[in-house]
Amino acid sequence: MVMTDDVRRILGHYDGDTPGTRSNLARLLMAGRLGGSGKLLILPVDQGFEHGPARSFAINPDAYDPHYHFRLAIDAGLSAFAAPLGLLEAGAARFAGEIPLILKLNSANSLARERHAATQAVTASVDDALRLGCAAIGFTIYPGSDAAMPMFEQLARLAHEAKAKGLAVVVWSYPRGGALSAAGETAIDVVAYGAHIACLLGAHIVKVKLPSEHIEQDEARQAYVEARIDIGSLAKRVAHVVQSCFNGRRIVIFSGGAAKQDPALLYDEVRAIRDGGGSGSIIGRNSFRRPRPQALEMLDTIVAILLGKI
Amino acid sequence: MVMTDDVRRILGHYDGDTPGTRSNLARLLMAGRLGGSGKLLILPVDQGFEHGPARSFAINPDAYDPHYHFRLAIDAGLSAFAAPLGLLEAGAARFAGEIPLILKLNSANSLARERHAATQAVTASVDDALRLGCAAIGFTIYPGSDAAMPMFEQLARLAHEAKAKGLAVVVWSYPRGGALSAAGETAIDVVAYGAHIACLLGAHIVKVKLPSEHIEQDEARQAYVEARIDIGSLAKRVAHVVQSCFNGRRIVIFSGGAAKQDPALLYDEVRAIRDGGGSGSIIGRNSFRRPRPQALEMLDTIVAILLGKI
Amino acid sequence: MVMTDDVRRILGHYDGDTPGTRSNLARLLMAGRLGGSGKLLILPVDQGFEHGPARSFAINPDAYDPHYHFRLAIDAGLSAFAAPLGLLEAGAARFAGEIPLILKLNSANSLARERHAATQAVTASVDDALRLGCAAIGFTIYPGSDAAMPMFEQLARLAHEAKAKGLAVVVWSYPRGGALSAAGETAIDVVAYGAHIACLLGAHIVKVKLPSEHIEQDEARQAYVEARIDIGSLAKRVAHVVQSCFNGRRIVIFSGGAAKQDPALLYDEVRAIRDGGGSGSIIGRNSFRRPRPQALEMLDTIVAILLGKI
Amino acid sequence: MVMTDDVRRILGHYDGDTPGTRSNLARLLMAGRLGGSGKLLILPVDQGFEHGPARSFAINPDAYDPHYHFRLAIDAGLSAFAAPLGLLEAGAARFAGEIPLILKLNSANSLARERHAATQAVTASVDDALRLGCAAIGFTIYPGSDAAMPMFEQLARLAHEAKAKGLAVVVWSYPRGGALSAAGETAIDVVAYGAHIACLLGAHIVKVKLPSEHIEQDEARQAYVEARIDIGSLAKRVAHVVQSCFNGRRIVIFSGGAAKQDPALLYDEVRAIRDGGGSGSIIGRNSFRRPRPQALEMLDTIVAILLGKI
Amino acid sequence: MVMTDDVRRILGHYDGDTPGTRSNLARLLMAGRLGGSGKLLILPVDQGFEHGPARSFAINPDAYDPHYHFRLAIDAGLSAFAAPLGLLEAGAARFAGEIPLILKLNSANSLARERHAATQAVTASVDDALRLGCAAIGFTIYPGSDAAMPMFEQLARLAHEAKAKGLAVVVWSYPRGGALSAAGETAIDVVAYGAHIACLLGAHIVKVKLPSEHIEQDEARQAYVEARIDIGSLAKRVAHVVQSCFNGRRIVIFSGGAAKQDPALLYDEVRAIRDGGGSGSIIGRNSFRRPRPQALEMLDTIVAILLGKI
Repeated sequence: MVMTDDVRRILGHYDGDTPGTRSNLARLLMAGRLGGSGKLLILPVDQGFEHGPARSFAINPDAYDPHYHFRLAIDAGLSAFAAPLGLLEAGAARFAGEIPLILKLNSANSLARERHAATQAVTASVDDALRLGCAAIGFTIYPGSDAAMPMFEQLARLAHEAKAKGLAVVVWSYPRGGALSAAGETAIDVVAYGAHIACLLGAHIVKVKLPSEHIEQDEARQAYVEARIDIGSLAKRVAHVVQSCFNGRRIVIFSGGAAKQDPALLYDEVRAIRDGGGSGSIIGRNSFRRPRPQALEMLDTIVAILLGKI
Repeated sequence: MVMTDDVRRILGHYDGDTPGTRSNLARLLMAGRLGGSGKLLILPVDQGFEHGPARSFAINPDAYDPHYHFRLAIDAGLSAFAAPLGLLEAGAARFAGEIPLILKLNSANSLARERHAATQAVTASVDDALRLGCAAIGFTIYPGSDAAMPMFEQLARLAHEAKAKGLAVVVWSYPRGGALSAAGETAIDVVAYGAHIACLLGAHIVKVKLPSEHIEQDEARQAYVEARIDIGSLAKRVAHVVQSCFNGRRIVIFSGGAAKQDPALLYDEVRAIRDGGGSGSIIGRNSFRRPRPQALEMLDTIVAILLGKI
Repeated sequence: MVMTDDVRRILGHYDGDTPGTRSNLARLLMAGRLGGSGKLLILPVDQGFEHGPARSFAINPDAYDPHYHFRLAIDAGLSAFAAPLGLLEAGAARFAGEIPLILKLNSANSLARERHAATQAVTASVDDALRLGCAAIGFTIYPGSDAAMPMFEQLARLAHEAKAKGLAVVVWSYPRGGALSAAGETAIDVVAYGAHIACLLGAHIVKVKLPSEHIEQDEARQAYVEARIDIGSLAKRVAHVVQSCFNGRRIVIFSGGAAKQDPALLYDEVRAIRDGGGSGSIIGRNSFRRPRPQALEMLDTIVAILLGKI
Repeated sequence: MVMTDDVRRILGHYDGDTPGTRSNLARLLMAGRLGGSGKLLILPVDQGFEHGPARSFAINPDAYDPHYHFRLAIDAGLSAFAAPLGLLEAGAARFAGEIPLILKLNSANSLARERHAATQAVTASVDDALRLGCAAIGFTIYPGSDAAMPMFEQLARLAHEAKAKGLAVVVWSYPRGGALSAAGETAIDVVAYGAHIACLLGAHIVKVKLPSEHIEQDEARQAYVEARIDIGSLAKRVAHVVQSCFNGRRIVIFSGGAAKQDPALLYDEVRAIRDGGGSGSIIGRNSFRRPRPQALEMLDTIVAILLGKI
Repeated sequence: MVMTDDVRRILGHYDGDTPGTRSNLARLLMAGRLGGSGKLLILPVDQGFEHGPARSFAINPDAYDPHYHFRLAIDAGLSAFAAPLGLLEAGAARFAGEIPLILKLNSANSLARERHAATQAVTASVDDALRLGCAAIGFTIYPGSDAAMPMFEQLARLAHEAKAKGLAVVVWSYPRGGALSAAGETAIDVVAYGAHIACLLGAHIVKVKLPSEHIEQDEARQAYVEARIDIGSLAKRVAHVVQSCFNGRRIVIFSGGAAKQDPALLYDEVRAIRDGGGSGSIIGRNSFRRPRPQALEMLDTIVAILLGKI
């Protein structure tokens, strides 16, 4: 594995971390077809936990099988595969070493009553990640929610342990709940704030939703107006989020949003991520809810976009 | 103990587990008259905790004695005997090595006021299971209930410890409470979702109730209709649950439901489990609330059904 | 200490326990004037915690002194002395080895407001019991109360530790609170259920109140009627509770109830305990609230009854 | 340090404790001008935590300096100095070995809203006490309050640790809150009950407020009437509290009550403590809120009273 | 590093601490242009956590980059740089040894709903501080708030650990919430009380807001009047706070208050801090929200004021 200058530059931002953690960040950045480019494309499969198996997999029944997702991620040449404990346990031995794994340590579900769905259950441990040969742990926080404080504290403990054991830390930062409006959950000020909090909590890689033009907090609006921050295009908003992540010293990736019929819409988003300086995408249901040939074609196109070829 | 190909194939699904855990799964799969067939038939006795001793045993007073249950399970050639701490302590030494044991780590009771009965007390530990020579721990979760999150987290911690100590993990997944209707607790979408969650939480063996044709969640109904999932027969529904458990990569067994006068009803259910690809049954009160000769005869018939002989 | 066949048979019921724990059970069963008979008579002094010193001891001021109780239990030839931490600390060295001790690990008090009195505080540890040379720990649970779940979990942890350290576990099982009526607290179905739960939680010795003829739970009533359980005399009810404790595989002892002027009433109860197959009595305020000579005479009579001499 | 018979007799009451703890009790009983008499006079300075610095020290500004209190206690020949963590840290090195120290492990404050003031924060640890060379830990409980149960459990854990590490345990037992009336907090039955609970929780030294003639609990009143307990004088009430502390087997000391202009009132109280068999006094604001010469004179008089000289 | 007499005198106040902790206090007191003077000037950057990145940095976009703050603090010759985990991780390796670091262990945020904002999340550990080469931990308490008790207990545990590991402890004491009025949060009695509590909790360095003339608590007002405490000027109020911190035996520093256009207002405050005997200032947004040249000039002036040159 010959390290590229792009990756070496990025790893330089993590000079406070141990060689173990930096090696695992390097594994993620050097894997798959984007390896060495400094870009990341990740397959996450936790939708079965969040929405149940039928809503996730019935449309493409092969996807009931954990091996399907491992193979899809490997064959598409992705950077990593992220999933909850049981799903990784079902394939980590068979596909050992073929793709970097991220163990998602907490999960939500939609069987729970609304007010109990305001948080996530911690369903696995850092030692589980080591046992399964993972490169990183994944953890979701809900900034703004009434459960945010305990979630931050859980993350702080788990991230500390992960770093001490040489793993990387990927944080899904999804503001929601509390005083936030529905539109506020993807407002540019809120997404940027949530991304910044993830960085302050010690995330190596931050995962957020693509931000809208909406500004949620009055105090923030004033700052956006006074400083004349340009949020008029998706690429500009991506750039603002990247700036909010220690001015680009932390890797930020963006989710593909709702399931989409037309992949062209997705390609436009990925171009905006690339043009705004984002580090890549994380694409779940848009991958595994399509037939495998279409999914592979779509992922192939996204790789090409991230590499700046199209 | 000459391993059969059926069991070897099933153990292959657990290639991410330690030799210790796989040995204990093998113990369960190679024990009794179903040994080697890949099927399981388990006797659980926790009804005394849930409903009290008189409602459980007065009808067949011999069953007040823990040894009665050990002997019944052994003489019927079952795969395992599952019970709470005290009950196993009372016979584990006397019957050491005669049948695999599953220590049930949490229990509910019906003395508690309704709202306090929404969860279960953790009444034993993984180390208790080791001390008593058990092959597995058993743990109940209530997906959908207001206590689901802490129950998932308890299971995550106990399952991690059990695996590290070479035990297998059996999860009773009983959706209930919260926003679920009474009918929803056995709705096909809810049972499949609950089984899937158990798999994601790292269960080796999942135990659910037999699902009805009812669909509880509106979002799920759409998926069932669109994907034309056939849930018109019990066997089809069993097959759907098996599919929801990592497409058959995890063992799923089904409970015998309410106490039944006529064993023929039970036999029909077991045939549906077998025909749908389920891995077997767990039959408590339908066993120990009958006189021993009748119970042995009934269990003998069920073994024959599971073996495909009748 | 020459072991009797009666005690050997009882110890046989605990064959799943370590030699350490069985030795301590043997200490209890071989101590005092009932030593070797398989019967137990225990002096508990936690009334000062529950009702305060004046209500407990002012009637017999010598009883303010912890040594008074040690001497009373020793001179009466009892099986054990049970008390909270401080009281044992005040005499355990002076009377070391003269009588088996049971450290009561949790306690209630009547200064607390009603709703806070629904549980007990854990005021000592298993290591305290070892330090003081005790043979057993004692722990109270309130099945049915809103605090029952955490109490069961506390007991599970403490009992596990006690067994690992070679001590015996005595559980005071007092159903109360929650949905139970006042009469329900001593209803035959509830007392039997509470005793059964204590056994399932791993108690070696269960202590309950004497049950009344009342049946509290409707579902249970049906079982009593259908199975024609005879609860028409106190001795029959004692026998039913003994049966509910693993058909006699666990030791059950009964409390003496409210303070009584006339000891004859107490003697009748003890005869019923004996005739129903109960293992003995635990008598607190009926002992130490009488002048010492009368208390010794009363305890002497009870010993004779338990030995079947009168 | 030549041990006196009085102290040897008192230490005999603690024969269940380790040599380490007994040595520290001896340090307290042999220190200062009361050394060897079996009496104790302690300076506590936690008023700054409870009422703030201005209300505590502005009247005598020298008292803002922690060294002032160390010097006052040493120069007055007191038995010990008790204070929270920071205050001891500021002088423990400078005055090492000059006077026994008691580290107060929990504290209340009057900035908190009423209902949050129902408990105290645990602000230091047993290891802090060891690090600072203390002879004992101090801990306040509020029997009767809604926070009493967790306070008892905290004390149980800390006392266990302190004893295992050779320290003595001093418990401030202040009934309050819950169902108690304001007058009830110093009612004779309540003070005696609170003192008894402290003993049962394993305190070596109990500190209570001087009791009034009021009886708070109806059930208790009956016991006082029936047993004709004499509570007609302060000395009699002190004697009753001493009796409630294991009939004198535990050291009980009394607080000086509200700030007093006229020291003569204080002297009368101390005489009652002495005549009732109390082991001494703990006097805070009555000491440090007077000018140093007056404080020394007052403490000198109290020592003389406790020694029976005046 | 030749120690000055001023610093040696201050370190003398910490004679109860380990050589490790005293070395780290010395690092803080000997660093930068104030090194050796006994004064401190600290740059804290946690505003991004509290108010989000746009409100904090958009006005001076260079400040999005963590390295900007490290360089500003180093180039201005400050005593220390304080920030949350992620921000320090992003520069601690690059700037290792160039300036003492303080790891802020807890943080608030303004995305949370009001009632959830009454506390702070603990987002890092003492071991994180060691790993990053910090000289001290920082921790915020809210005396008076409904969350004060658990915050005090968290601080107690973390401070104990920090001291055991040779670090210094800096406490931000910000009374707020509970029964306090808005004006009360900076009332002289409340600020002095909050500072005193921080000292009692074992802080080495206390950080408070500049107090107003307002007196919040009626009981306190009486003490201020009776003792004729002069709070008529800011310098006098600073002196009163210093007195409340163990009569100057603990270092107290003051925050710069709200963002100010005119630095002259800030200079007046710093002069009052100096004249009142305060140990220095902590200035965040007033530093990094100005362009770097102006910030450097302002900090240069403040240093000169603290050194008594202007």
